[in-house]
This record gives sequence, structure tokens and C-alpha cells, in this order.
Amino acid sequence: MEPLHLTRCSINTATLGHRDPIAVTIDRIAKAGFGGLAPWRHEVEGADVSKIARQIRALELKVTGYCRSTYFPASTEEQRLANIQSNVRALNDAAELGAECFVMVVGGLPEGSRDLSDARAQVQDGIGALLEAARKLGVRLAIEPLHPMYAGERSVINTIDQANALARELDPHNDGFLGIAVDVYHCWWNPQLEAAVSSIGKDNRILAYHVSDWLVPTTDTLLDRGMMGDGVIDLKGFRQSVENAGYARMVEVEIFSRDNWWKLPPDLVLQTCAERLQSVC
Amino acid sequence: MEPLHLTRCSINTATLGHRDPIAVTIDRIAKAGFGGLAPWRHEVEGADVSKIARQIRALELKVTGYCRSTYFPASTEEQRLANIQSNVRALNDAAELGAECFVMVVGGLPEGSRDLSDARAQVQDGIGALLEAARKLGVRLAIEPLHPMYAGERSVINTIDQANALARELDPHNDGFLGIAVDVYHCWWNPQLEAAVSSIGKDNRILAYHVSDWLVPTTDTLLDRGMMGDGVIDLKGFRQSVENAGYARMVEVEIFSRDNWWKLPPDLVLQTCAERLQSVC
Repeated sequence: MEPLHLTRCSINTATLGHRDPIAVTIDRIAKAGFGGLAPWRHEVEGADVSKIARQIRALELKVTGYCRSTYFPASTEEQRLANIQSNVRALNDAAELGAECFVMVVGGLPEGSRDLSDARAQVQDGIGALLEAARKLGVRLAIEPLHPMYAGERSVINTIDQANALARELDPHNDGFLGIAVDVYHCWWNPQLEAAVSSIGKDNRILAYHVSDWLVPTTDTLLDRGMMGDGVIDLKGFRQSVENAGYARMVEVEIFSRDNWWKLPPDLVLQTCAERLQSVC
Repeated sequence: MEPLHLTRCSINTATLGHRDPIAVTIDRIAKAGFGGLAPWRHEVEGADVSKIARQIRALELKVTGYCRSTYFPASTEEQRLANIQSNVRALNDAAELGAECFVMVVGGLPEGSRDLSDARAQVQDGIGALLEAARKLGVRLAIEPLHPMYAGERSVINTIDQANALARELDPHNDGFLGIAVDVYHCWWNPQLEAAVSSIGKDNRILAYHVSDWLVPTTDTLLDRGMMGDGVIDLKGFRQSVENAGYARMVEVEIFSRDNWWKLPPDLVLQTCAERLQSVC
């Protein structure tokens, strides 16, 4: 397996803790030698999208993903439609940014619900409704299966196989606009990981590959992700699996780390990401 | 579905926070009207096992499980053998207690390892080595798949299907001594839950059914389980699935709750369990 060159690596801006304006973050990432970034809507929507897009193009950075969808499931039909509309607006920005994909974190159970099947059906309907807009705008939708510990609050799509089944049902002709974002943090535990990755690779549906690490112990279910190499995920093995499955896009670092990396100087974080990407990933 | 009668319900002693000597806990559980309990080794091994067994029999309580196996995976062959020997000793106590099963929490990655496949192979070898002793002693082994968030530290067996594949491989003749403990907390998120439960039910391998609830938010990955009804798990639906699959044994409450239920009076906890078992489970 080839060592990773930084031009093939991207930084999800959450990794830096969203402490600077997006324009500053973009410059930092470019200066550190990375080939891409993945910005968040709350950074972009409050700013001038065209200006951000121009800055990114001028620096020749790729946008490996635009984060993220408004959750689909809701208690009322009105809210469900509003969620889809919010996602259509975000798709317009994703198109302007030239994002490789729009990252879909699909949402958990609606308030007061214990009905996973219903929430999953709502997700399917929501993605189905969004897919036409995505095709028109030329933006790929990437379903991101989240770790099962997020099934209650953040995502009722929890495995690669489940995301794949959904993609195949909604997009049987597989015209390139519906795929899957594979994040090692969410998927590393899967006893059938190799087979699952191989299956979506064959369909050419792997649209993004996110790295971080699983810390032992993990002190917070959301904000205690580790830097690559500091945890227990076999990152080289995982990359080998996605590359064996045909993946040749970028490797994106996405670390939520409230009590550690988000407290350290952004340039130090970027330097550490660069070192680890080239040594342990 | 029949409402649960307390005589079909059991209390895992961890639910009470292990604050009293086991003899006191046993009396409390019997007095509250439950039909069984599941004690832990650290309570039993420091006491007189025969005396505890006599107390349990005198009160006509069932032992729905004996908790739990020493973790199998280790960095050295010597330690692996020691782990198996430790489990054989525990099986003797399980036999004396008349336990319905010995609950196997199989262990995570050995210190310094990132090799899930190797750890899983070690688990398979360990259970295989234990199975003969279990048959001789007449104690069933119940593999408990743990939530994927425990793959690093506590269990590399993370789904019912994975446990089932292991059971089928180690025990193809299915003579009744190797099965699976199904715990709602670990399995509720599974998009193929119904099929997985149905499959192990057909093989008559469901040896225990544990209830608690998944809280939103969850503040600790280990010690923040909810009382039934306080979280988002569809408990009636889950019981329906296991009963549809032929399960007719006891329903065991197992709640780790350091900051809530473990601080409340044990009799109040038992009373609440009784109410919730009969209303939301």
C-alpha cells in the first residue's frame, strides 16, 4: 500500500474545533499542505458562500464533503418537509462549493418516539425526495452510517450494509449520485467489515473515507474521538480494505475532541494530523 | 402478549449496585416477589458458595445467569490458559448455584493490540476449550454480544448474528450447552434485529433475556443505563420478538446506573423494577 501523500488528504474543519472564521481555517489547511477540506454548514451559511468557494478554488483545494444534512425524521409532516427543504438549500451551497458529496447524517428517533422502523422509513423517504434535487444540481449524496451508539439521537442508519440496502433500493440504476461515506470511527467494530466495504466498493458507492481513532477508554460518546494512532483502530488495515474495494478518493480527518485537540493550537493539530496520516494511516 | 408476572422476572444483582452482602440482596429480591436473580462472581467467590446456593433454593429463586466470564483474549499464551482455568472454576460455582447459564462477556482487544480478528479467534478458541467442561458440569454457556461501543475493552462479540455464527461453528450438534444471552441494551439498534432473534430462536439458543433502557442522552458508556421506560427502546416490541422466536424463560433486569439508581434505596429500586416490568416491558 502506498504511503499517503498530503495532497490526497483532507481536513474536516470540525477537527480544529470551529474556533476561527472559515476563511482563516481554509488558509491554515492549504498552508499545511493538505489537498482538501470538508466545511460545515454553520460556518458557510453565515458567510458569503461564493467568496468561500473562490478562496477554496484559488488555493486548489478539494471539498471532500459538505457537512451535513438536517436530520430527516420528525414528529410532524410539516417538519419533515421543512427538513427536506433545508437540505435542498444546503445542496445548492454544496454545488457552489464544488463539494465531492453532501454528507448525510440522517437523524435519530423523533422526540418521544421508540419506533426505529418508522424513523428508518422516514429517512428513506427523505433521501428519496432529495435525490432528484441532488441529480439536478450535480451533487452526490453520501449516506454516513453512524456508530450504533448514536441510534437514539443522531442516526438510525448504523451499518454500511444498512446504508447500502437503502442506496440500492432508492437508486437501483446507480447513476453516481447516491453513495456512502465510510468513517472508521463508526464502522471499525463490524465483524463483517471487509465484506461490507467490498460490497459498496463493487457498486462504486464509496464517496468518502474519514479517519480518526477510537480511544480506550472513551470518556464522551460524541466529543472524545482520538487522533489517528492514539486508539485501537487498525487504520492501515481499514484503508487497505477501502482501496481493495476500489476507493481512490481522498482521506479526510474528522476528529471531535473537546477536551484535547480542540484546546491545542490549530496549526499544531494540523501538523499532528499530517504526521499521523503519513505514518499510521 | 401476556403481561409479565414477577415470578417470571429476575434481578441481576448489579442493578442494586452491589452495596449489600449477597445474602441480604437475595432476601430483598425474594421479598419483593421476583422469581429469580443473577449474581456476580465477586459477590459469590468471597463467600460460602454452598450456603448461598442453599439460601437461593430455600427461597425457590431461579438463578437466571451467573456473571460473568473472565475475558478470553490476552497477550500471552500463559494468560489465555489462566483465563480459561478461571472460567472453569467459575463454572463449578455456576453448577453449585444451579445457574441457568454462565454469562460470557468475552473480552476486548488485549493491551496494545489493534487486531480484532485475532481477538475474535482467541475468543472462539477459549469458548471451545470451555465447552467440554460446561457439558460435564451441566452448565450452559451463554455468549452475550455486547454493544459495539465495547469492542475495544469488553467484548469483540458485538452482534447476535456474530454470536450465532460462533455458536454454530463450535457446537454444530447443538446439544443445549452453547447459546446466547440477548440484552436489549446491546442489541436494540440492530436494523436486522427481528431476523437475528428469529434465527437464534429457531436453534433454541436464546438462554437469557436482559432488560434495561437506553437513555437519551447517555452520559457514560458503561454506567448510565436507564430503568425500563425511561429511554428509547421499544421493550414490548423486543419481548414480542424473543417470544415469537420461542423464548419462554425469565426476563432479567440488568441496570448499571452509578449516578441514579445505585444511589437510591435498594427496595425502592426493586419496587420500580417490578412496576416497570409489569407496565412497559
